[in-house]
Amino acid sequence: MSFELKYSEYKSRVDRYLVEAIQQTKPDSLYKPLKYVLAGGGKRIRPVLVLLSCEVVGGNIDDALHASAGIEILHNFTLVHDDIMDNADARRGRPTVHTRWDSNVAILVGDELLALAYNILLKTSSPRIREIASVFTDGVVEVCEGQAYDKQFETRAAVSVDDYLLMIRKKTGKMVAVSTEIGALVGNGSQDELAALRTYGELVGRAFQVQDDLLDVIGDEKKFGKTIGGDLKEGKKTFLLLEALRRSNGKDKKLLQMLIKNGGAAKGKIREFRRIYETSGAIDAARDFVGRDIVQAKGELQKLRPSAARDMLSWFTDMLLHRTY
Amino acid sequence: MSFELKYSEYKSRVDRYLVEAIQQTKPDSLYKPLKYVLAGGGKRIRPVLVLLSCEVVGGNIDDALHASAGIEILHNFTLVHDDIMDNADARRGRPTVHTRWDSNVAILVGDELLALAYNILLKTSSPRIREIASVFTDGVVEVCEGQAYDKQFETRAAVSVDDYLLMIRKKTGKMVAVSTEIGALVGNGSQDELAALRTYGELVGRAFQVQDDLLDVIGDEKKFGKTIGGDLKEGKKTFLLLEALRRSNGKDKKLLQMLIKNGGAAKGKIREFRRIYETSGAIDAARDFVGRDIVQAKGELQKLRPSAARDMLSWFTDMLLHRTY
Repeated sequence: MSFELKYSEYKSRVDRYLVEAIQQTKPDSLYKPLKYVLAGGGKRIRPVLVLLSCEVVGGNIDDALHASAGIEILHNFTLVHDDIMDNADARRGRPTVHTRWDSNVAILVGDELLALAYNILLKTSSPRIREIASVFTDGVVEVCEGQAYDKQFETRAAVSVDDYLLMIRKKTGKMVAVSTEIGALVGNGSQDELAALRTYGELVGRAFQVQDDLLDVIGDEKKFGKTIGGDLKEGKKTFLLLEALRRSNGKDKKLLQMLIKNGGAAKGKIREFRRIYETSGAIDAARDFVGRDIVQAKGELQKLRPSAARDMLSWFTDMLLHRTY
Repeated sequence: MSFELKYSEYKSRVDRYLVEAIQQTKPDSLYKPLKYVLAGGGKRIRPVLVLLSCEVVGGNIDDALHASAGIEILHNFTLVHDDIMDNADARRGRPTVHTRWDSNVAILVGDELLALAYNILLKTSSPRIREIASVFTDGVVEVCEGQAYDKQFETRAAVSVDDYLLMIRKKTGKMVAVSTEIGALVGNGSQDELAALRTYGELVGRAFQVQDDLLDVIGDEKKFGKTIGGDLKEGKKTFLLLEALRRSNGKDKKLLQMLIKNGGAAKGKIREFRRIYETSGAIDAARDFVGRDIVQAKGELQKLRPSAARDMLSWFTDMLLHRTY
């Protein structure tokens, strides 16, 4: 079976599970928006990583389905609450919950998603259920911390590249690492396998975020699925902006500082900032960063026994991180 | 040791645990308001019930401390999010989180409280940890459902007493039942003991809410700690209002319907509504309801082996439910 086919099959299993898992309908003020969220699609990266990580340590993916769905629901909880906090109107091409309903509904739907995530995770049949639940919980704690840093950084003038890396480690990297670690736990992996897959997840999650920053500036709008230059318009303190700031002097530095002070760039100025990102070396730095993480992540995979699942993980890494740019 | 002294000792242990459990300080935008919430005091009814339920089945309360604190943190999560949804300015005599900080902070602090609740619960050393975590999770699911019903009922004209009882069973009763059941699980109680304590919790939780409705109308402001007549001012669909509506005719029924339609009573009208509650028999019905629940709850305790802890639970029931009115 080709890698693409296997990915699409695993993704379908997760999608099917999510539809079947939630049979409740009442109160409908809660379950209607909740099902709306889970039917919103997405790449299902995290649940597929759970399944592959279980498989790669010798486990059966059937045993990891509950945990896999639990992780995806948890991810959706973070999206619903983050969208309220970020005042985001749309997600995956559809109105967000607080836009289509209201903020109160979105708060409650998020809470219920988190509860259901645990409910489904805890169906996992494993003697290591305590570890599984603890790793999952550490993930929730760190995601909240990451989001808190993210909101802090929006209004704080001085943010360093290191601050940014701490934030994305918690906000994005941790949940990917939780996915791979929980998959390995369900598959009853050894301590070494767990450590390798955890580190792999951290690296991939972090690289994925930096690459997302990069695609906002140099991506192909159609392939990326988001409006290019959005981060610049919002003045978001991305890896590129912080790295360019660190590397610039004179007029360029002043322009970047103004961008932060004004909370965003005018539409006509996007091109100018792209030039600064290019000439300052920030774009190359981001590319190098992602490239190094990919190499390191694949190095972690090499610590695992050779298998079809390991090859698949390696392909998945490239698929996630070598998006066209 | 007197019952009062034992209660105050158990309460202090929970308070101390909560202060010591959370050592994190960063990001301070998250942990400062979070600690503010947990330092807000309260009667610690649920965690004390966890400890007593562990003890009454022959367990050691030291083993139940983690679960006990986990339950209290979970309860505080619901308060922080409910206060946003209810637009409540004050809680326990202090500004609510979304008032003192803002809604975004309150959403995130609530999420983090829920994560920490699991984090601390999962420290419990018990072979029954999966059951403990599942009962806890069922509690979170039902609390969300109860809150969804509560918000639905605010804008729905036709709400029956049965609708109301379903709502408080989920929103208030369930969490008390979760407390007693988890205590019994930590103490490794038998299935019969678990069932008795679960039913006891449901009854006490439900009676506690109906009594709260009652105290709003006929309580002593100083002892109650809340402004009397608040529910009437807001037109809240309490047990009393719904029961009075069911029992009234003619002019009184019209007045009650107007109260609902107008979303509350003018200050000068509170006395008039109290009269209707009295003459319709709604107040007596609420008193009888609470009284019957107390008798039934104590009946459940009688199914347990006699012990000092059982006597203490019986006293605790009276203490909670025989507040002055």
